[in-house]
Amino acid sequence: MLPVIETIALRQMASGDRLYLQVYKFIGAQPGKKVYIQSNLHGAEIAGNAVIHQLIEFLISLNDTDLAGEIWLVPVCNPMGTNERAQHFSPGRFCVYEAKDWNRIFWDYEKEADDLVAFAKFQLQDHQEVVRQNYLNIIKEKFTKLLAEINSFSSVPYTEYFRYQLQNLSLDADYLIDLHSSTNKGLDFLYYFPNQEESAKYFLLDLGILLDKYDGDAFDEAFIKPWLALEGRFQQLGRDIRFDVEAWTLELGAGMQMNPDSVAKGVRGIKNYLIQKGVLKISSLVSQEENHKMTFTTSSKRQKYYAIAGGMIQARIELGTVVKAGDKLYQILSFNKESQLPTIIDIFAEQNGLVYDISTNQAVNQGEFVLGII
Amino acid sequence: MLPVIETIALRQMASGDRLYLQVYKFIGAQPGKKVYIQSNLHGAEIAGNAVIHQLIEFLISLNDTDLAGEIWLVPVCNPMGTNERAQHFSPGRFCVYEAKDWNRIFWDYEKEADDLVAFAKFQLQDHQEVVRQNYLNIIKEKFTKLLAEINSFSSVPYTEYFRYQLQNLSLDADYLIDLHSSTNKGLDFLYYFPNQEESAKYFLLDLGILLDKYDGDAFDEAFIKPWLALEGRFQQLGRDIRFDVEAWTLELGAGMQMNPDSVAKGVRGIKNYLIQKGVLKISSLVSQEENHKMTFTTSSKRQKYYAIAGGMIQARIELGTVVKAGDKLYQILSFNKESQLPTIIDIFAEQNGLVYDISTNQAVNQGEFVLGII
Amino acid sequence: MLPVIETIALRQMASGDRLYLQVYKFIGAQPGKKVYIQSNLHGAEIAGNAVIHQLIEFLISLNDTDLAGEIWLVPVCNPMGTNERAQHFSPGRFCVYEAKDWNRIFWDYEKEADDLVAFAKFQLQDHQEVVRQNYLNIIKEKFTKLLAEINSFSSVPYTEYFRYQLQNLSLDADYLIDLHSSTNKGLDFLYYFPNQEESAKYFLLDLGILLDKYDGDAFDEAFIKPWLALEGRFQQLGRDIRFDVEAWTLELGAGMQMNPDSVAKGVRGIKNYLIQKGVLKISSLVSQEENHKMTFTTSSKRQKYYAIAGGMIQARIELGTVVKAGDKLYQILSFNKESQLPTIIDIFAEQNGLVYDISTNQAVNQGEFVLGII
Amino acid sequence: MLPVIETIALRQMASGDRLYLQVYKFIGAQPGKKVYIQSNLHGAEIAGNAVIHQLIEFLISLNDTDLAGEIWLVPVCNPMGTNERAQHFSPGRFCVYEAKDWNRIFWDYEKEADDLVAFAKFQLQDHQEVVRQNYLNIIKEKFTKLLAEINSFSSVPYTEYFRYQLQNLSLDADYLIDLHSSTNKGLDFLYYFPNQEESAKYFLLDLGILLDKYDGDAFDEAFIKPWLALEGRFQQLGRDIRFDVEAWTLELGAGMQMNPDSVAKGVRGIKNYLIQKGVLKISSLVSQEENHKMTFTTSSKRQKYYAIAGGMIQARIELGTVVKAGDKLYQILSFNKESQLPTIIDIFAEQNGLVYDISTNQAVNQGEFVLGII
Repeated sequence: MLPVIETIALRQMASGDRLYLQVYKFIGAQPGKKVYIQSNLHGAEIAGNAVIHQLIEFLISLNDTDLAGEIWLVPVCNPMGTNERAQHFSPGRFCVYEAKDWNRIFWDYEKEADDLVAFAKFQLQDHQEVVRQNYLNIIKEKFTKLLAEINSFSSVPYTEYFRYQLQNLSLDADYLIDLHSSTNKGLDFLYYFPNQEESAKYFLLDLGILLDKYDGDAFDEAFIKPWLALEGRFQQLGRDIRFDVEAWTLELGAGMQMNPDSVAKGVRGIKNYLIQKGVLKISSLVSQEENHKMTFTTSSKRQKYYAIAGGMIQARIELGTVVKAGDKLYQILSFNKESQLPTIIDIFAEQNGLVYDISTNQAVNQGEFVLGII
Repeated sequence: MLPVIETIALRQMASGDRLYLQVYKFIGAQPGKKVYIQSNLHGAEIAGNAVIHQLIEFLISLNDTDLAGEIWLVPVCNPMGTNERAQHFSPGRFCVYEAKDWNRIFWDYEKEADDLVAFAKFQLQDHQEVVRQNYLNIIKEKFTKLLAEINSFSSVPYTEYFRYQLQNLSLDADYLIDLHSSTNKGLDFLYYFPNQEESAKYFLLDLGILLDKYDGDAFDEAFIKPWLALEGRFQQLGRDIRFDVEAWTLELGAGMQMNPDSVAKGVRGIKNYLIQKGVLKISSLVSQEENHKMTFTTSSKRQKYYAIAGGMIQARIELGTVVKAGDKLYQILSFNKESQLPTIIDIFAEQNGLVYDISTNQAVNQGEFVLGII
Repeated sequence: MLPVIETIALRQMASGDRLYLQVYKFIGAQPGKKVYIQSNLHGAEIAGNAVIHQLIEFLISLNDTDLAGEIWLVPVCNPMGTNERAQHFSPGRFCVYEAKDWNRIFWDYEKEADDLVAFAKFQLQDHQEVVRQNYLNIIKEKFTKLLAEINSFSSVPYTEYFRYQLQNLSLDADYLIDLHSSTNKGLDFLYYFPNQEESAKYFLLDLGILLDKYDGDAFDEAFIKPWLALEGRFQQLGRDIRFDVEAWTLELGAGMQMNPDSVAKGVRGIKNYLIQKGVLKISSLVSQEENHKMTFTTSSKRQKYYAIAGGMIQARIELGTVVKAGDKLYQILSFNKESQLPTIIDIFAEQNGLVYDISTNQAVNQGEFVLGII
Repeated sequence: MLPVIETIALRQMASGDRLYLQVYKFIGAQPGKKVYIQSNLHGAEIAGNAVIHQLIEFLISLNDTDLAGEIWLVPVCNPMGTNERAQHFSPGRFCVYEAKDWNRIFWDYEKEADDLVAFAKFQLQDHQEVVRQNYLNIIKEKFTKLLAEINSFSSVPYTEYFRYQLQNLSLDADYLIDLHSSTNKGLDFLYYFPNQEESAKYFLLDLGILLDKYDGDAFDEAFIKPWLALEGRFQQLGRDIRFDVEAWTLELGAGMQMNPDSVAKGVRGIKNYLIQKGVLKISSLVSQEENHKMTFTTSSKRQKYYAIAGGMIQARIELGTVVKAGDKLYQILSFNKESQLPTIIDIFAEQNGLVYDISTNQAVNQGEFVLGII
């Protein structure tokens, strides 16, 4: 099965050159769900590009009868981020011109929804699929108005144009997967939304972090939040409705790296997810899911450690270590310009938890990130 | 009168070097208000440094009997911003490490206030000065807790440490003046808060923009918002109370420039303000305020124009022009890499207004800022 | 007359997007010289783009019988530089990845020439045009070897690939014009090579600076240096030969600006040059050259002033001022963090001369550029 | 033994803050050689800071009778480089303002020496120590003139001021050690100058690279080159003279890292070197030098591989692998925006050698560094 490949103009640069998005669309012989998968939204987080490449190779090897619905793949989805360099490194986390995190710019319908309660009341007796379609139509209608703004004389900042292009591709997806990694060095895990533990396990990762607090600005959040909001309104009105709409962010290792092990985990997880969700109809690929143990925790438990002094980080605990409050985490070798000897500052854990992220850079100005515990 | 000069350690860098704040405190012979003036919070906005320098020279020439209360002056208040370079230019608007606008990081007590209504009720009959003192004590108490966090093992990101240092100097001021300019090229004007038109005129500027919508993250907002909030609660309870607490942001021309005319306007305005508010007791300096006409408008009317295509800006209307909807604002000379001739795109005004800000850079990638109209 | 427009792939970015060069080739009905004109090699120096645009418009309005030879125009010739941003500004002077000035990267045949004296001896009696063709062939042959290196597994750093593309377009030109401006704020003038004062005047500018010392790394230098070297060898052998090959760098005002006056001067000068050199056959356009007075000086007389202390530049002498040794040039308003009052440092001229360049940024860290005198 | 600690003002920033150098001077009870050791000249290359810290701890534990001569230690010797950040990473290899490699800025006396042959002739019969002292005096005299330039009104760019400060501390050293690492990921090895293989082995590293071509701009080169030049002149005059002056650059692992193993090797090597050279008089510390095998090669054999296409690097050979011409080195996973499937490009070795350096970043724009072979 070969994909339909669509190339979409993204940004005209001052030089007249253009950046593009390119979508690989695998379209099944049978109708079904739309799956949207993108990678490299943050410029340094490249592991997902290898994942998508391997998925493309894999899907090409299938017959279109093996696929129900569509899988849209968008690797290197943020050329501005991917191509940015600071000397040899890829910062790429932020839109430098606007000082915005590339993953905190998205359009969240819920923030503009006129009256969700009224909508829910009006559709209280309708079939779930009808509700879904009606709601999606309303979202799309509102979304379309962004285009008028983009095309006006005053237009919009680039981040608003960029989000339009990515959301235009993904707004009507059923399942959305955003492939990230740490910009620094992180574990392999996923972020998920409330009540999705069962689906989460399909990804066969060891750790899942529930996004218990979110504001809708991230790509996965902006996609799922309106649906969760509508479910909430229905629940208030006494009807339990659960849309088959899911959003996932997979974190696959370290920034500037495509660690083969992290990549393999990503590929394996997504394949299994697609089989379990009935998108891939391949009886031969038996899922290992039964025996897979996954640990769940919540994002609000994350605690980040910032350097209390300027200096060099040494003797830092390993990524993946389970620590107890009071355990030594790292040292700062702190120099001075006040005619004193260098000093060593020991830093201890304030809480129990798992070291899930550590800085790539072992030099820190005061107040810079050193590690994260969850 | 000589100032007391206090030097405060601000940040230890990885190299062990330290950055500092330096406060020039002029202390009057008579008690009175505390005035806090800072400059250069955004790295490119240097005009206020010349203003503060001239104010220091002026205040040194006075006797301490000419001053009631205290004037605290903090030039170059953000070394990280001031010293940053991109080739020969000063970007300096953002904390690059955290991708935060240096003037959207401040601590707003109102967001953490437990129950302002209860507080207002409890003090409903108290004298205004007693209320002020009690409220300030509560704010300070909450603020002090930030220090514990800073000194903990997990500490805080630098922006939170930095804001602590600046707000620690200014939290108990009566009048606060933050000296900015456009990072690009702007008019000389001030931002003010509701109901302060009378005081605003003391600054003898031509244009005042009312901050009708604000979230409390900017330096002036974080300072004044809790007081306006308390006034609001009292009003709800039927008591009209107006604290003599004021916050101002003066915008003095262009980024990377200390335009002598903008600087002179800043100095003149602040002197007159201090005289009118009774801080400076100098009968010889007659105010020109009577004849001064000031135009007032609101910040929500600002409209920014972003480039609808990549290219070069030409034939742009002048800064300070009054435009009508439909007037031509500028052209984009847009090149391409598709074997076409270059094109000219004309951009027209969508609204009536005054061109108050224009980009220094006449090259634009699609979605970059070109000009602002109010 | 419409140009042939050629689009040339320049660089594939990590995201798969490509940058391009685009050449507008106006081809005359009669044979003649090849003129190569490019702009925006330094990212901030955009004025030449408007010049080239106006030349395109002008040439389109002509008949091909008005043109003898070919004019190749390459606006926005360095997309990496043009599109780079640091916050709102265009640094763009350097290849950041390699820390190289975009105009100090070019391939100079002379540095690799095996034995110019032998070549000159061998051709001592040949007709000048034959010598020219033979020499050009040798240069081209050597140049072609760069392509093998580019296409090898180890390939080359981007600057070497980029220079190949630009020089591949221009190596066989007769007249080469590189349109620059100050990255800061500069006068309108041109750089020229020895013995070209007569042609220099055709550009109708007020100031010409002779490049009396150059190493061949700049675009104009790399083009002309092998020819000047060969002329030198012939001279040593007793034959005066002067190839009709010319290279010019026009400096047109300020960085990030397309000042209409500088642009107009550029267009006027190039048109007149092309007429005087017989490339444009337009009798109706009378040259104003007769009355034009031009001042000539030499590049080795340039003296740059760097800030002797950190601080803010004020009271700086205007661009274009003629100064005498001992004249006051500017002040540094220098703050400190040692509990002292700010100080004013006066800076005086060390030599007589003309202020031809001043920094856009009035804030300086110690050792940063303030102004240039020639 | 406690060090004398000297703090030297280095640069005044625009904000008035100052950066400093700090020298830890251990002074022996007996006269002897002066050893100068610095670290972190390139901002990302922090491993040497830990080495110097451990040397300080070690030297403090000694008695001053254990030391003949002086050891001067300058950690974090380049605050501008060390403190620079691009998002979380340390670029720090270049002076961004001037686009200069921080280790290609140094002052090389040989380039300004008037007539070395005459000097050598004049001293042909003198005792080596007399020659050494006379030559050093001449160098110092010339060097002192730089200070006049620094203090003039036109002053100098910061890199020239910075080099003055570092060379002022080290110009009269006998042994100079500059602690670097790869900015990317490199092996532990040292760079040495001709005829120093015997001393090189004292550092107990596995690999030594002879600098067979150098221009004198690097710190070690600028120090040693005038001495090698004078030795050469004497040789031409028939006298073999070998000054006991040595310069070393140790490369200790990866950028942004203080790899404990690399740090330990650095500390061990320097201690052994100091013992072998008679600077440390510690009989108890037996050198392991006898059994140590060291491989020597030359810097001109280094070949760097640059990406022939934009994309993501995968399947790259490990750092430290010995390869043969034709071996597969890495793949580029190359995306496009031309509606094609992604492609895999295989890259093969052009020569036999050792992979001594690999890029930290696995994303590459065309022409970016991937790996180095020697």
